[in-house]
Amino acid sequence: MSVEDRELRADARRNRQRLLEAAQTLFRERGLEVGVAEIAEAAGVGRGTLFRNFASKEDLIEAVVAKRMYDAAAYGEQLLHAEDPGEALFDFMAQMVGRQQLDRALFEAIDETWLSKEVIRPAHAAVFGILEQLTTRAQAAGAIRDDVSAVDVMMMFKGACLAATTYGREEPGAIERYLDLIRASFRPVAGGPPLRGRSPTLGDLGGGRSD
Amino acid sequence: MSVEDRELRADARRNRQRLLEAAQTLFRERGLEVGVAEIAEAAGVGRGTLFRNFASKEDLIEAVVAKRMYDAAAYGEQLLHAEDPGEALFDFMAQMVGRQQLDRALFEAIDETWLSKEVIRPAHAAVFGILEQLTTRAQAAGAIRDDVSAVDVMMMFKGACLAATTYGREEPGAIERYLDLIRASFRPVAGGPPLRGRSPTLGDLGGGRSD
Repeated sequence: MSVEDRELRADARRNRQRLLEAAQTLFRERGLEVGVAEIAEAAGVGRGTLFRNFASKEDLIEAVVAKRMYDAAAYGEQLLHAEDPGEALFDFMAQMVGRQQLDRALFEAIDETWLSKEVIRPAHAAVFGILEQLTTRAQAAGAIRDDVSAVDVMMMFKGACLAATTYGREEPGAIERYLDLIRASFRPVAGGPPLRGRSPTLGDLGGGRSD
Repeated sequence: MSVEDRELRADARRNRQRLLEAAQTLFRERGLEVGVAEIAEAAGVGRGTLFRNFASKEDLIEAVVAKRMYDAAAYGEQLLHAEDPGEALFDFMAQMVGRQQLDRALFEAIDETWLSKEVIRPAHAAVFGILEQLTTRAQAAGAIRDDVSAVDVMMMFKGACLAATTYGREEPGAIERYLDLIRASFRPVAGGPPLRGRSPTLGDLGGGRSD
């Protein structure tokens, strides 16, 4: 590749990055209704560049969601090396709730059909893979009960997100309160009965559901 | 009141009751799209009777939701006299999740704005009043931790509903699994730290929110 080619590619990467960042900021501040022209302007690129990168606004939204998921996965990856595996798991959950609250409009767009989208699927799998490892490590350290799966963790966590979005924005400490309750729900109980029901898998949640 | 008048009133009550029951069954089986003509036919009354009772389909939906809430409150009322106050609270939660799963379309229509509707508000207040009493009784018996409020209970319970509607319909035991986790989250912990955050009130959840 020539020096010019390399510079052109670096330019293209920077433009794409700028577009994603501008979109994320504007979606966060004003919701998903923000127009693409405004996003291109905020990113300092032309509309042509925007549409070369993202054929539709839907594509742009998906790319921003995927970026947020990869950011979360990267954060979780670091936590795999934390000294206290129990703290690491709950730190990860707190981060994820906080991120979803911050980018509420984006994450509200996600439903089960989204998990089967080409751009979202690998990003979601990355986050889930990290969550599984954090869960396994916390269990090995005796910090949480043995019979919860990463999907259990995710479902409880979705409940906390619901609490956070219902009144958590105006109420300081609301998220922490529900994280405390979730943490208590995972506490190992010596001699206690196992959880009823089957530990669900990711396949039970994602993709292909018609309703 | 004459005998005829009394009979007319009893007739009107029966018609209203039949309409509510037909609507509940059809909404449950086919969702809220079911037309009012079909509901009147299933109830064995004319459309005129339907509209004398419910000026709009929206009114009918609200009345069915309110009825479901009063049914739940009546069930909870009985539980106030149960021998084991902890079991009573969790029995009530299990019932409520089951009812919401059964009448999913109805309860999905409810958001914060609904809680301020004239027909819904007293019905919701009735359910919540029972939940508060069940929570207080369970705390007095030492069955659950002292620092959770009835709103905490309700929020955790909403998370279980979310789990139930996400994959609980196809997965036997999914609801029980989340109820077990919620139950564990409320377990009293001797010498443990209190929950962070303020215990929210009903006012934090209901009515008047613009978003």
